[in-house]
Amino acid sequence: MPKPPLHLVLYQPEIPYNAGAVARTCVALGAKLWLVRPLGFQLDDKHMRRAGLDYWEHLDWEVVDDWDALLERLKGARLWYLSKTAARHYTDAEFRFGDVLVFGNESHGLPRSFLDADPNHCLRIPIRRQTRSLNLSVSAGVVAFEARRQLVAKGEIPHEPESR
Amino acid sequence: MPKPPLHLVLYQPEIPYNAGAVARTCVALGAKLWLVRPLGFQLDDKHMRRAGLDYWEHLDWEVVDDWDALLERLKGARLWYLSKTAARHYTDAEFRFGDVLVFGNESHGLPRSFLDADPNHCLRIPIRRQTRSLNLSVSAGVVAFEARRQLVAKGEIPHEPESR
Repeated sequence: MPKPPLHLVLYQPEIPYNAGAVARTCVALGAKLWLVRPLGFQLDDKHMRRAGLDYWEHLDWEVVDDWDALLERLKGARLWYLSKTAARHYTDAEFRFGDVLVFGNESHGLPRSFLDADPNHCLRIPIRRQTRSLNLSVSAGVVAFEARRQLVAKGEIPHEPESR
Repeated sequence: MPKPPLHLVLYQPEIPYNAGAVARTCVALGAKLWLVRPLGFQLDDKHMRRAGLDYWEHLDWEVVDDWDALLERLKGARLWYLSKTAARHYTDAEFRFGDVLVFGNESHGLPRSFLDADPNHCLRIPIRRQTRSLNLSVSAGVVAFEARRQLVAKGEIPHEPESR
């Protein structure tokens, strides 16, 4: 597989339909999907498969047992942590080729310790306070496509997806 | 309610979980949600309500019987049609305050006749050909947040959501 322009990490995701929708987004972008255990569903869950439809064969993905295993596998890459508690907007980040976008789970977001360890790489999607958060697959899509927009603007990936 | 910065239209949506996730995105943005009948679910569907969680009381929304009723209600507004068949990327559009983003349903997208009637306002999210499309709620989030980004950049809405 070619080097992915982006990596999307779902940390301990709970809802299979969301994971399936994120998988579909990853195929659309040529991004690699990482799932960090424990997962709230079986990998053959029908809701996850259905949400991703017939795209699984095109998906570059990997499941890792825990956070340390992920860091080991992604050594040297730049990680961005998405959290509603972050100060910086995701639109004010400068994304580059190979960046890793890390999303927490539906109930708890990311562990505080991850954010505290790297506050300069924590990002927030600005939303009104009437919502606690966006749907997980929506958040992942919003940030990943902003990263794509920036990579295109900088000429790091083509304006038109290569294999269209 | 204050004038919404954006309107999101779901034309004959089929899957309640997606409509719920779009509703949540609308509350997050202060956007108004329009649902054009027929709908593939009841408005009190538990999957839709659960996806939107406890946000319904904050949602500005309206259900209309058909397309003509929508056009009548949104007279004078500028409509953008999202379709995988469009030539122009959504990132190349210039969005402005009060714009209307129209999304087709999960199975069929928007009717060809809508697109043919206004080709200059048809937009596409660039995706690799291995996916037919993104999840509907992901598409809506991606385009709506790009519109928000542009409105912020032009100073038409504040960088930070007002009621945060």
